[in-house]
Amino acid sequence: MKRILIFAAILCFCGCTWAVAEEGMWLFTNPPTEAIAEQYGVTLTPEWLERVQKSSIRFGNGGSASFVSPQGLLMTNHHVGISTLQRMSTADDDLVKNGYYAETLADERKCPGVELNVLWEVRDVTAQVQAAVRPGLTGDAAEQARRAIISKIESATNEETGLKCEVVAFFNGGLYHLYCYKKYTDIRLVFAPEQAIGFFGGDPDNFEYPRYCLDVTFFRAYENDEPAETPNYLTFSENGAVDDELVFVSGHPGRTNRFKTVAELKFYRDKLNPYGMEKVYRKEVTMKAYGEMSAENLRQVQTEIFRWTNYRKVRLGVLTSLQDASLMARKEAEEKALRDEITRARLLNLNEASPWLQIERALKQWEPIMYAHDLLETGEGFNTPLFTYARQLVRAAQESQKPDEKRLRGFMTADLPNIRTSLEAESPFYAEVEIAKLGDSLTLLIEKLGAEDQLVKQMMAGKSPQNRALELIRGTKLADAETRVAYFDTAIEVGQIATDDPMVELALALDKRARELRSVMETRVEEPMRQAYTKIADARFKLYGTTVYPDATFTLRLTYGQIKGVTDPDGSTHPAWTIMGNTFKHGEAHNFIAPYTLPDSWMAARDRIEADTPMNTISTTDTIGGNSGSPMINAAGEIVGILFDGNRVAHARSFIYDDTHIRSVSVCSTAIIESLKSVYATERLLQELETVMK
Amino acid sequence: MKRILIFAAILCFCGCTWAVAEEGMWLFTNPPTEAIAEQYGVTLTPEWLERVQKSSIRFGNGGSASFVSPQGLLMTNHHVGISTLQRMSTADDDLVKNGYYAETLADERKCPGVELNVLWEVRDVTAQVQAAVRPGLTGDAAEQARRAIISKIESATNEETGLKCEVVAFFNGGLYHLYCYKKYTDIRLVFAPEQAIGFFGGDPDNFEYPRYCLDVTFFRAYENDEPAETPNYLTFSENGAVDDELVFVSGHPGRTNRFKTVAELKFYRDKLNPYGMEKVYRKEVTMKAYGEMSAENLRQVQTEIFRWTNYRKVRLGVLTSLQDASLMARKEAEEKALRDEITRARLLNLNEASPWLQIERALKQWEPIMYAHDLLETGEGFNTPLFTYARQLVRAAQESQKPDEKRLRGFMTADLPNIRTSLEAESPFYAEVEIAKLGDSLTLLIEKLGAEDQLVKQMMAGKSPQNRALELIRGTKLADAETRVAYFDTAIEVGQIATDDPMVELALALDKRARELRSVMETRVEEPMRQAYTKIADARFKLYGTTVYPDATFTLRLTYGQIKGVTDPDGSTHPAWTIMGNTFKHGEAHNFIAPYTLPDSWMAARDRIEADTPMNTISTTDTIGGNSGSPMINAAGEIVGILFDGNRVAHARSFIYDDTHIRSVSVCSTAIIESLKSVYATERLLQELETVMK
Repeated sequence: MKRILIFAAILCFCGCTWAVAEEGMWLFTNPPTEAIAEQYGVTLTPEWLERVQKSSIRFGNGGSASFVSPQGLLMTNHHVGISTLQRMSTADDDLVKNGYYAETLADERKCPGVELNVLWEVRDVTAQVQAAVRPGLTGDAAEQARRAIISKIESATNEETGLKCEVVAFFNGGLYHLYCYKKYTDIRLVFAPEQAIGFFGGDPDNFEYPRYCLDVTFFRAYENDEPAETPNYLTFSENGAVDDELVFVSGHPGRTNRFKTVAELKFYRDKLNPYGMEKVYRKEVTMKAYGEMSAENLRQVQTEIFRWTNYRKVRLGVLTSLQDASLMARKEAEEKALRDEITRARLLNLNEASPWLQIERALKQWEPIMYAHDLLETGEGFNTPLFTYARQLVRAAQESQKPDEKRLRGFMTADLPNIRTSLEAESPFYAEVEIAKLGDSLTLLIEKLGAEDQLVKQMMAGKSPQNRALELIRGTKLADAETRVAYFDTAIEVGQIATDDPMVELALALDKRARELRSVMETRVEEPMRQAYTKIADARFKLYGTTVYPDATFTLRLTYGQIKGVTDPDGSTHPAWTIMGNTFKHGEAHNFIAPYTLPDSWMAARDRIEADTPMNTISTTDTIGGNSGSPMINAAGEIVGILFDGNRVAHARSFIYDDTHIRSVSVCSTAIIESLKSVYATERLLQELETVMK
Repeated sequence: MKRILIFAAILCFCGCTWAVAEEGMWLFTNPPTEAIAEQYGVTLTPEWLERVQKSSIRFGNGGSASFVSPQGLLMTNHHVGISTLQRMSTADDDLVKNGYYAETLADERKCPGVELNVLWEVRDVTAQVQAAVRPGLTGDAAEQARRAIISKIESATNEETGLKCEVVAFFNGGLYHLYCYKKYTDIRLVFAPEQAIGFFGGDPDNFEYPRYCLDVTFFRAYENDEPAETPNYLTFSENGAVDDELVFVSGHPGRTNRFKTVAELKFYRDKLNPYGMEKVYRKEVTMKAYGEMSAENLRQVQTEIFRWTNYRKVRLGVLTSLQDASLMARKEAEEKALRDEITRARLLNLNEASPWLQIERALKQWEPIMYAHDLLETGEGFNTPLFTYARQLVRAAQESQKPDEKRLRGFMTADLPNIRTSLEAESPFYAEVEIAKLGDSLTLLIEKLGAEDQLVKQMMAGKSPQNRALELIRGTKLADAETRVAYFDTAIEVGQIATDDPMVELALALDKRARELRSVMETRVEEPMRQAYTKIADARFKLYGTTVYPDATFTLRLTYGQIKGVTDPDGSTHPAWTIMGNTFKHGEAHNFIAPYTLPDSWMAARDRIEADTPMNTISTTDTIGGNSGSPMINAAGEIVGILFDGNRVAHARSFIYDDTHIRSVSVCSTAIIESLKSVYATERLLQELETVMK
């Protein structure tokens, strides 16, 4: 109770809503059990927490999922599974378009290249890590010391536990946990709906509500060629959730910036994010213009177009929220309150050694190199994988000749086989796409670094961006995997690449400047900021302990909230539910023209479907990208939905929690069951789910 | 001959191609007759020139056309006539989609709001204008004196001649001509093809070659309700042009920057044009995203989307050409050669009083206010006509209370009725479109002027850009024409607007700063640059007289060149012709999916059409936007085509002429005649054309 009271005091003091009711992406090691008990009269038992934790799955590199039967059956979003479906599809057997259902266990199809992780064990290793970074160490030295101890802890525990162990930093290094995961790599497809209903409404409806998506896919984890035994799993609720009901989301939010200083948020608002938008606008336009030239062109760049359209919506949402003075004022009040507390408790020197000032100083180092670092070192000035290959070859040649401890990150002896594997991988290559992308990014490079810059002049070789791109893409042999590997083998053998490949020459020409920029970025920006944030996190700990939650880091979190309707900023109000029957009306309103074309299976089932069944629902749970596929559960620990999106204004959650207009969007458990019954007649799957339903 | 020799000397001296063979958008008062006689053995007689001049038409505000019969029949591009067709269309009678043919004279349909101008008489008024601007006058004073004398000359000659007279400046004020136009306002539609063939290949094919468009429409000028008598007209050539044939284009190129200093071109390259691209990318994306939400949304913003796609292609073409170091090196060599000549002839002080330095200094004044001026004074930060209305009301209120000579341009007593008319005009209004546009431009405003700027804060009222846009568009009454006019009448009566309309309040709030920016722009940037360019033009005159041509100013010009195939920068080569039969193959290659759907009339006529008939053709003539619809004629003065586009790299012509890869694209006269015969069977029209053909 005491911790809650401290909170309340801050709330009163600064007049802002620091940690409002449902805010927080909580660690399972520190769930907000007291607040939930207080507010909802619901007690989360250790057993409840353990079962939910061990039922929750990190899916591949960007999504969430959960076990829904004791035989390894698991559920995620269709849009989380889609890249897997795409890899398994051929022109004749398009699983994305047609969906899939395995009538028997034997029909469950193996999915290539998917890894699932389930958080099994957590240990606090903060003391060990912090002790290794001796005070006074700066830049590279601090970073190296930290990396060394982390890698030591990880390899020791990997052996000890047989699990996959990772040291993860929370609170910008205020807390280090060792996370040990149970890993599954034999995953098979059980059921996927057609993309037309999985992503009904397509890009126009993406990040909107009301919504009508069956964004769900079932896989099964296998061990030793048998369905995995998963005693920790979640059952489906019989009737789903109701208005105002308390719900939980257990999943893997990707990244938030809630605890960045106001100075850094303003840097994002004023510099970094506008630049990011500039890039995404031109990429979207360049790819769409290319795609419009023919159906085949469109096919080649369809996923690029989806990536940039989606990314643009997210980034623009974040930027315009940062530009909202009332939200920024809340962040300022939060920061002031924290600084006042720190001063009162005499925890930190807030004068010249203030970590806030340290961050401001670091940002001042970042600003003048922001474009150059991004264009030359991150490689945004050369938007083609062929440049990335060239860069890897050039650096592998140089780094492989040094002792391990002097090498760049990613080029240790142990990393080289991975680099070779990545160079070996074949992927579709369309020269005209790469020319369009590279031409556009060279135009940006000239704009930002200046046409009179000597290095720019050298790189452009007296040509227009389009003609230089043409020359580079036509001239390089790096589109060929065998050539890449041959170059690589020579490179690490003799320490240089004896080639007149124009892309390699380009990468070589700019490498010195790129490395200088990288070094400035690492030593004068990133490391000072890391240290400053550690100091702030430290002080915050001393004040509040773990009654605050850390920023999202694609690790398992628990969030809670209520099923609740919404009033949009434009004044329109929406109930907390849509119903299955209105899915057809939504299609009709768009004349069923793509992306509002319903699949034949749905059109045929129109009369069979119980029209009033809740379809999608919104809640005040605190989620963000990465949470996609997370189970939404009730107090009894039963599945009432699966999270798949946020509404239009939800992107502000990157840096602030607010439930005035923001909602998370989920597919209702009822819609999943009703579609499996009335549309897809997936008896075997239903039986397995209903067996586990109460 | 002597003038030509001076040229040759310069060419040798600087090693560059200052005025290569076909360069030049020549005034009819100074055609390059000697060069043409020399190079092609063709003599342009005064009669030839007069007939071509008086057959050439300036069409509305942005295109060219020509008389093709003595009864006022005239020909322009379909894309020049399209906005007229659109205004004449209804949902049931869509002239854009279906085309039109008037079987009888009585069927020729009246076109609302079209004005044609034919250049009838030219007088040199340089001495009069220059004398009025006394040396030493700067800024506003110089500009006012110039405007006064110009308006005096114009009104005197209007009365004297009964023509529409305009003083036009060439060579940045080195030469002032009085242009008197014969005006036609009763225009009727004779024939238009379907847009599907008029703009075949749509946006993807726009600015590309090979090409297959029947981009032509016929109108007729009337006087006193009878077909106008137009003894000056062009006849159709019987067989069209052949490879390497000398051809002429007589039309109205809009704007070029050929005689800007290198410093100003670099300012475009480094500052102005990148900013322009940034704006067009986001506008295109914002409008397309809006359009994708439903068919109705798309209908609302279709023309906006076309505008920005087209504009983006043009502007990107110009920017990437400016970024081409080899082209810039040519501009630098040209400039050096001119400066050397000036120094040798002791024509100008090229030290501290150098006009080149004066221009550089003016650009240094421009740079720091570039964003603010564009956003606040030009109004780009408030991208909705509702803001433009508000601005007009606010300024009309203030300006109408001053004596005429103290008012802002456009707000004289004589201008007020025009403002009222423009406020009165009804046009479709879609609140959601305006919210999207305004929201995007407010985001840009914050990015460029800074979220902490006091005026920005005041304008945003503590809201996000989207929410502020919502509030402004929902709150204002300016979408209603009657309200606008009522506001206006009060405004000029009492000198202020007693309204709490939020858009008017916004326009008022920023007006002081906008006016300051305007004043800086006019007095410290534009006027010093105008004076400097006048000095350079003066010196150029003294050196070369009118053997050089002035930059394009949407006035009548003659250019010449050859029908010639092309090798693209990517190495692909194309003959100078496409043929009608391949129009079908081009459609087939795109599965006849829009914009590659051929109209039914063409599909039905496939077997009747003579497949080998030349369809579109390319030439080295020196043209640019505004030339669309210009007749392409042979040495005998006969029409061999109608110009409608440039190829992909043609945008460089904004600042340089080059015929390595650049071509102008025309519809062949043969394709026009063959379609009228075999597709449309327009006997009456053909008879009129063939009567005038030899």
